[in-house]
Amino acid sequence: MQYLVYSKAGRSGVAVVVASGAVDVRDIDAQLPCELDDIIAGGAALSARIGSLAANYKGAVMPLVSLTPRFPLSRPGNIICVGLNYAGHAKEGGHEIPTYPGLFMRTPESMAAAEQAIVRPRESEKFDYEAELMIVVGKGGRRIKEADALEHVFGYTCFNDMSLRDYQRKGAQWLPGKNFDGTGPVGPVVVTADELPKGAHGLRITSRINGTTLQDSNTADLIFSVARCIAIISEFATLKPGDLIATGTPEGVGYPRKPPVFMKAGDTVEVEIDKIGILRNTIIDEA
Amino acid sequence: MQYLVYSKAGRSGVAVVVASGAVDVRDIDAQLPCELDDIIAGGAALSARIGSLAANYKGAVMPLVSLTPRFPLSRPGNIICVGLNYAGHAKEGGHEIPTYPGLFMRTPESMAAAEQAIVRPRESEKFDYEAELMIVVGKGGRRIKEADALEHVFGYTCFNDMSLRDYQRKGAQWLPGKNFDGTGPVGPVVVTADELPKGAHGLRITSRINGTTLQDSNTADLIFSVARCIAIISEFATLKPGDLIATGTPEGVGYPRKPPVFMKAGDTVEVEIDKIGILRNTIIDEA
Repeated sequence: MQYLVYSKAGRSGVAVVVASGAVDVRDIDAQLPCELDDIIAGGAALSARIGSLAANYKGAVMPLVSLTPRFPLSRPGNIICVGLNYAGHAKEGGHEIPTYPGLFMRTPESMAAAEQAIVRPRESEKFDYEAELMIVVGKGGRRIKEADALEHVFGYTCFNDMSLRDYQRKGAQWLPGKNFDGTGPVGPVVVTADELPKGAHGLRITSRINGTTLQDSNTADLIFSVARCIAIISEFATLKPGDLIATGTPEGVGYPRKPPVFMKAGDTVEVEIDKIGILRNTIIDEA
Repeated sequence: MQYLVYSKAGRSGVAVVVASGAVDVRDIDAQLPCELDDIIAGGAALSARIGSLAANYKGAVMPLVSLTPRFPLSRPGNIICVGLNYAGHAKEGGHEIPTYPGLFMRTPESMAAAEQAIVRPRESEKFDYEAELMIVVGKGGRRIKEADALEHVFGYTCFNDMSLRDYQRKGAQWLPGKNFDGTGPVGPVVVTADELPKGAHGLRITSRINGTTLQDSNTADLIFSVARCIAIISEFATLKPGDLIATGTPEGVGYPRKPPVFMKAGDTVEVEIDKIGILRNTIIDEA
């Protein structure tokens, strides 16, 4: 199933994508939750019920173009990002191939929605793109074994881990360059794990600026697989339903290019992951 | 004013510390909030009203020993930590004196309360202490000027940024070593900014294990002052009421000592900041 958290003419809700458009889950059953957080918290039984109801739904459908995507969660938990998870990207940044990932967090305020205009902060012109597969945690847990980890995935979405490269390297930690307000778009849809290859393995992942492909890799090249990321993070931190894990970006980001490529006002930036979708945003300057 | 967020025989609430003990704010006025988050959100007017009511309160007082401190916030926002903020600590770790701090985040689940038993994770024996002054943000804002920053402080508390040193250095970022569940005790009281020197400047800060002093410094030695930390962080991230900023630890932590000092089951660890209080925890092993 593909969930699209949306707003439309003042109404907001969670829709299921169907062949001809999208259906709000409350149009299928008025008792269903109006936030994806609650659908995730409802576990496998609730998702199965929604799937079965949606498959039999015969009512009206909303055209996808009429819906404005929202950030998928209304009460975001922890947003943990895995850095240096593709060998090519580690190399282009001058790093060794890691034996343990570089982990950092993003604040909820640093995130954004698909289609949302992304403000390039006035503090920096080094505004870079990073196409990433994002895990939406379903079942929580601590010290989850790698062999069991995929049972803890609700679904997957696209993420653009937009980074201010000068701020990323201003201090000993990357946090500032990764946490400017509204620089981390996610979406538009969350695809449930059952619709994808196990661990979202083997999916082509690309990014484009104004139609030119700049990253073109495959999730099969992850150094730390989806299951391994969950095992590594949950070794120290209890994962909760709705926590987000960004799995890192492949080679082809802007700053090591000669000449460097940075995003500027007017650019359209896309992250595309096979079988998941296209996350599209335009860049604007601050007013 | 000193706020103590507490539980006692199944009741939990916010107390104001008075000469002979503590008074629940709802015993002063039944309409007052039962969470510190809401008192902070109420701004200066609400705090002034509570102060005036508490000063005139003549009713019964609870003995402090009857109260179990809780983590001060029920809905924690962002917890941002400033690393390498005392020259002596930067030096003992082999770092240059920074011109920009090393910033990282902690999850709410990584935090703990004063007096709470702290579980040393079974993954590591390199469990270190870090005495820190913690800022509780009052008024939110973005790009707060250093000159205005102290207007954004609600108060201050003690923090022990307990760190698993091997996990801190396993990858390119410190996050794992700083985010084991329940390793960041805070409290017991939040002292409002008006009770302390401007910017909590010039306060002695110490840590002790089983009564032996291991850190002994002064907040006057902060490289990045309280106001500067707020200006630096809010340059990229909108601060919200209730966000927490840990200001870094002075020299004297355990791992660079010869021989190294790490915390083990049975240890009592204290962080004391002059005019704020003593944060005391005992260490236990996992069951």
